Amino acid sequence: MARIALDAMGGDFAPRATVAGALLALGELDSSHSIQLVGRTRTISEQLDALFAEPDFAAMQPQRDRIAIVEAPDVIEMTDKPGAAVRGKPNSSMIVGLKLQADGSSDAFVSAGNTGAQMAASMVVLKLHTGVKRPAIVTNFPTARKSIVVLDSGANVDCSADELVQFARLGVVYAEDILGRENPAVGLLSIGEEPEKGNAVVKEAHQLLQAAGINFLGNVEGRDLPTGQCDRGPVDVVVCDGFVGNVVLKFYEAIAPFIIGLLKQSGLDEKTMMAALRQLDYSEHGGAPLLGVNGVSIISHGKSSPRAIKNALKAAVRAVETRMDEHIGRRLQEGVAAE
Amino acid sequence: MARIALDAMGGDFAPRATVAGALLALGELDSSHSIQLVGRTRTISEQLDALFAEPDFAAMQPQRDRIAIVEAPDVIEMTDKPGAAVRGKPNSSMIVGLKLQADGSSDAFVSAGNTGAQMAASMVVLKLHTGVKRPAIVTNFPTARKSIVVLDSGANVDCSADELVQFARLGVVYAEDILGRENPAVGLLSIGEEPEKGNAVVKEAHQLLQAAGINFLGNVEGRDLPTGQCDRGPVDVVVCDGFVGNVVLKFYEAIAPFIIGLLKQSGLDEKTMMAALRQLDYSEHGGAPLLGVNGVSIISHGKSSPRAIKNALKAAVRAVETRMDEHIGRRLQEGVAAE
Repeated sequence: MARIALDAMGGDFAPRATVAGALLALGELDSSHSIQLVGRTRTISEQLDALFAEPDFAAMQPQRDRIAIVEAPDVIEMTDKPGAAVRGKPNSSMIVGLKLQADGSSDAFVSAGNTGAQMAASMVVLKLHTGVKRPAIVTNFPTARKSIVVLDSGANVDCSADELVQFARLGVVYAEDILGRENPAVGLLSIGEEPEKGNAVVKEAHQLLQAAGINFLGNVEGRDLPTGQCDRGPVDVVVCDGFVGNVVLKFYEAIAPFIIGLLKQSGLDEKTMMAALRQLDYSEHGGAPLLGVNGVSIISHGKSSPRAIKNALKAAVRAVETRMDEHIGRRLQEGVAAE
Repeated sequence: MARIALDAMGGDFAPRATVAGALLALGELDSSHSIQLVGRTRTISEQLDALFAEPDFAAMQPQRDRIAIVEAPDVIEMTDKPGAAVRGKPNSSMIVGLKLQADGSSDAFVSAGNTGAQMAASMVVLKLHTGVKRPAIVTNFPTARKSIVVLDSGANVDCSADELVQFARLGVVYAEDILGRENPAVGLLSIGEEPEKGNAVVKEAHQLLQAAGINFLGNVEGRDLPTGQCDRGPVDVVVCDGFVGNVVLKFYEAIAPFIIGLLKQSGLDEKTMMAALRQLDYSEHGGAPLLGVNGVSIISHGKSSPRAIKNALKAAVRAVETRMDEHIGRRLQEGVAAE
């Protein structure tokens, strides 16, 4: 039984994409789960009515009972500076939506709005787990095997070796709870297999990870990301700083359209290819959880479609059901105790 | 008229791949160019004879006159430590091959051997251009438009902002001379378009690049690499540190096989796809020049096929013909003078 708050005003295609995504999610989720649409009540009501008038959504009218609308008159814009927005817009859908969790009336929060603001607001409203210095954004990368967990994907650009170790701990819990991996194998993203390869921070992190009591495989390389494994076996979690993680993530998102373009020139069928490459579509994988905050905060792409919103909501439910947040808190405390 | 020295002993498939690559290159290059095969004379002679006995290479026997064999009894192995190898193996094919340039009897050097040793040896034997602090490896990335130049691709893992600016200068000359681009547009790889996005070094480099007197487009993101352009227009040169560059490069090399694997499952024809994605094959693009050394040193992949060697040799010829090295020396001095 999870109550998921959705920032109805967040994202380039809100409120249509967000409200439609909520309906799609309710259609697929067990009936014990409910969604809280946070934003301007009137805008959200009108959007719901408009969707129910569409043929595709008419049959979803019974789901209306599982939706609560939570009023938030203000909106944090994509162009707002994170810090100023969090301080200056306490009645925004983002702050109000996160606060529902702080006061116990919600279990998770999903937004496709301003990512920087969501991070800052999540830290302020939910606080960080004991032992966490900085939260990390985690992304699922599709591979030839199973998907792998890559973190940080953009929350932290200048990271210390300690922080990379923390990302490993966060990623392990995520891989266990959300992906159902047992004893997840962790790789450190570098430019060679050998421990002495990498930049200064990565070399230090390699040493620390060997003593961190996790299933550490050693360094992995860029070439191991699409295959999901290195010479020493399959990888579940890949650790890197948010600069490298973000560059690789955005590169990955852009590569499929490029390759389809090349293949189309050979007369191959675009539809078949699109279907085959569907797993490369980020909207298949829902949002990117912000790990380390004391609660659930799922960051969705600004250009999220209803489908992407739906999958982000389902990811939130899974995080709540597996009690990921609690596990992270415990694991991090163990990490602190062991140091 | 270029005389290209090739490390006949370097690479996982040497000497067959190197000697065969030399023959393929001579078949395509203007007859004024010649190749110096550096290594164990007897091994090289026997390999030449063996190739001429093969149907595919029999017709190339007349090219024999354009090949000189330069004796070097020693070989730097892939597993040798760069510094120790350069000091301890002065009679290796790598050191002997590079020295030909230092004493004026050769114009360029190509190797598919130990990359770290080639970098160290190039710096020791060829020296660095005035104003260059560290040499950079430059790679051509295929894109949906034209290929782009990415540097550094792995020579330097911890870079200062000054060094990134130097990479920009090196890349501009390379793009002009080798790719024939006019007034090449330079992008700084980061995690957002805005100047304030990025890690500390990248943010500083952004400011320096704006004042560097080059055609600086601003930040580019991972998603701009496959398209070859950002919102502000087409990009020719992408600057990043060697850690990020190497991760992205290796990721890029591994992505095509992964995608072909996905598409094969839909019953699409593998051969057609391989042909369509041929431009993603690194061996199409020859070696990666080491920029900043006072001479020409082309680094080839250890797994280079004859075709990859051939393309690396052709890249060396183009570097010699366009006098890239001289242009880099001049440009770097201008950079120093302007600072």
